[in-house]
Amino acid sequence: MSVDSIKIGLLGLGTVGRGVYRIITGNSENIRRRVGAGIEIKKILVRNPAKERGLEMQQAIFTTTAEEIINDPEIKIIVEVMGGLEPTLDYVAKALKNGKSVVTANKDMIAAQGKMLFELADANQADLLFEASVAGGIPIIRPLKQCLAGNRISQIIGIVNGTTNYMLTKMTREGTDFEAVLREAQALGYAEADPTADVGGLDAARKLAIMASIAFNSRVLPDEVYVEGITKITAADIAYAKELNYIVKLLAIAKDTAAGIEARVHPALLPLDHPLAAVNDVYNAIYLTGDAIGDAMFYGRGAGEMPTASAVTADILNAARNILHQVQGMISCTCFEDKPVRSMRDTACQYYVRLQAVDKPGVLASIAYAFGDKEVSLASVLQKQKDDETAEIVLVTHTVREGNMQDALQIIAQLSAVNSVSNVIRVEEE
Amino acid sequence: MSVDSIKIGLLGLGTVGRGVYRIITGNSENIRRRVGAGIEIKKILVRNPAKERGLEMQQAIFTTTAEEIINDPEIKIIVEVMGGLEPTLDYVAKALKNGKSVVTANKDMIAAQGKMLFELADANQADLLFEASVAGGIPIIRPLKQCLAGNRISQIIGIVNGTTNYMLTKMTREGTDFEAVLREAQALGYAEADPTADVGGLDAARKLAIMASIAFNSRVLPDEVYVEGITKITAADIAYAKELNYIVKLLAIAKDTAAGIEARVHPALLPLDHPLAAVNDVYNAIYLTGDAIGDAMFYGRGAGEMPTASAVTADILNAARNILHQVQGMISCTCFEDKPVRSMRDTACQYYVRLQAVDKPGVLASIAYAFGDKEVSLASVLQKQKDDETAEIVLVTHTVREGNMQDALQIIAQLSAVNSVSNVIRVEEE
Repeated sequence: MSVDSIKIGLLGLGTVGRGVYRIITGNSENIRRRVGAGIEIKKILVRNPAKERGLEMQQAIFTTTAEEIINDPEIKIIVEVMGGLEPTLDYVAKALKNGKSVVTANKDMIAAQGKMLFELADANQADLLFEASVAGGIPIIRPLKQCLAGNRISQIIGIVNGTTNYMLTKMTREGTDFEAVLREAQALGYAEADPTADVGGLDAARKLAIMASIAFNSRVLPDEVYVEGITKITAADIAYAKELNYIVKLLAIAKDTAAGIEARVHPALLPLDHPLAAVNDVYNAIYLTGDAIGDAMFYGRGAGEMPTASAVTADILNAARNILHQVQGMISCTCFEDKPVRSMRDTACQYYVRLQAVDKPGVLASIAYAFGDKEVSLASVLQKQKDDETAEIVLVTHTVREGNMQDALQIIAQLSAVNSVSNVIRVEEE
Repeated sequence: MSVDSIKIGLLGLGTVGRGVYRIITGNSENIRRRVGAGIEIKKILVRNPAKERGLEMQQAIFTTTAEEIINDPEIKIIVEVMGGLEPTLDYVAKALKNGKSVVTANKDMIAAQGKMLFELADANQADLLFEASVAGGIPIIRPLKQCLAGNRISQIIGIVNGTTNYMLTKMTREGTDFEAVLREAQALGYAEADPTADVGGLDAARKLAIMASIAFNSRVLPDEVYVEGITKITAADIAYAKELNYIVKLLAIAKDTAAGIEARVHPALLPLDHPLAAVNDVYNAIYLTGDAIGDAMFYGRGAGEMPTASAVTADILNAARNILHQVQGMISCTCFEDKPVRSMRDTACQYYVRLQAVDKPGVLASIAYAFGDKEVSLASVLQKQKDDETAEIVLVTHTVREGNMQDALQIIAQLSAVNSVSNVIRVEEE
């Protein structure tokens, strides 16, 4: 197929959309040489065409009607950068039914509706590309699908939420507490007014669901991911972690085990010499293990206008090249298998426990006994005087089944000598 | 095109070839699902078919005649893992002329003869893929060509030679000198009997030439890369670097500047908080900067049987998919431009200088004057008493043109108060 240019339509012109517009219009010659044809933005869906956007654009490029884009026979690629599920999913589904290739940055939609959308894409010989949905500008979807295709990936550990990584970095460096750092992050625009999806771990869980599905060739849905946020992490926990040679990070962890897939997002103590321990501020990184490659890490900016637009643009170029060569859909869904997702109680981990106990002889013994009774063995214990009557005890366990640990914790919380269990954080030793 | 399996031929069955054989034969079902057809190794070129290889293989698979593979019409993909230029280049050129796609791990060949080979591939609608030629298992060629295609890449800094990184890591951790570490690395098989290509920086230079050519869309040949190895690095330099908050690494650096391309391989002092500073042992990493993505890093094992075979296999799968869809050559050479490579004298850098001087008043002033006369300004100075008559002086300059620095060093070496200039190492502050 020989054409002078491939026409595309944008659904949305928010932060990422503006970045895509800038790259596509600013690098047109470079793009033409790479693709073999130009890329022309024909229409953009916006709510308010009159809004000032800081871009030089003709008014005629705007439409307020999605159908003008998804039903336009000239438009071959739909770039979805409006986010959300409603009405986005409907637009994307219709575009695929019309045989258009879709490039999206929408992690919520891909994580929850990937199966249905891939079936539509396949049925209509269209590409469905979503590199930008995970870790912004960092190439991870294509590396997983193509570059590591000879591997059996056994494990992914990611820092995939910039907001929480920024907050934990600040708490670690300055010794400040969660609430204070959150207010500061909100003032700087690094955290949203409603920070639930970020600090609660849901954003990371969606990204993990997408990565695990590709890496393990078996679909993992967002609600199959165990999720725990960083809201309970205190300056005291971070300080103890440091004393024990760990750093606290919000990790997105997926493992492919003989008993099924493990998928969990939670704060964790990570050894200071782990490659992920040096990933600070708003940076993201994905550390993975494959049977051939060994361990590898992909590091970069996980969000922001231009990094995310970089990933969207790369997908647009690939979709355009496939259209020119008439090979849309050449690489499709890779969920060939149907592996179970393990119950969290059956996973195994090490744990850090901080608790307040009455400071008298025999208390530590009673706590150690309760753990031992549930087959939880202890790797290290720190005990610090808090006041005349209370001691703060910090324990790190050996690897133990989560169910046993939870059972032990229930019993320990009820011991008369234990005033309170202040925090329990998992420890990830690779 | 619908076929049950795509037949491939291997040129060579050394370390990497054995890894490829293991992955292709061990993951056949997984590969079939990804590609849409099986991959079958039909023939393997070896010198001695009778040699024991620790693999279960039929004797009939071996041939000692390359033509049996490159002229076999059934064989669609040639996997070149024999290395070297002679007779490899001839075989690969003939295979491409026969319309066969070629997958190679051969950095020497791609760096020196990429242009000619790409022209052959294009003329015969074949793929030429070489992910394994740079940084072993780490995906970097495809990310540069596809995932970052929306970016203008301005800079690449790589640690791309595992042998020297292992040696420098050991020297840093143990305070040992170059010769001792080299002997140990040779005994462990991490360094070759003739270590020149590794410790002299030539291996890294070839990899840098390949990466720079792709990143900057303009061919950089290996002999256009300035090369300096690590043979002159001493334990003393590493200790001083540490005192100044730096670590010594062998860096492969390429920059795309308005005045032309900079391409250089040399040891450098790198700030301890740089992401590359934590890349230790035999690990490799490529740190790059693009106008949209910002900075990103790709980290992993840069060599070894299985990591390199992982990259070769991914290329085989892509070549096979392209054959099935009849779109060989869809992504070809991307050297669209012809940018000059800057003379090393015109580049600019900071420098660390360690010298031995007579310990008497006015010596430091005379040295500082000589630098100042060539417009070299000093950022920091350390002076240590060595014995009654000698002082060791360690200087770090501000950023200065290399030519000026070399001119100043010539004059300083001749100052009567200077006994010797012990070492000069560049400092890379991003």
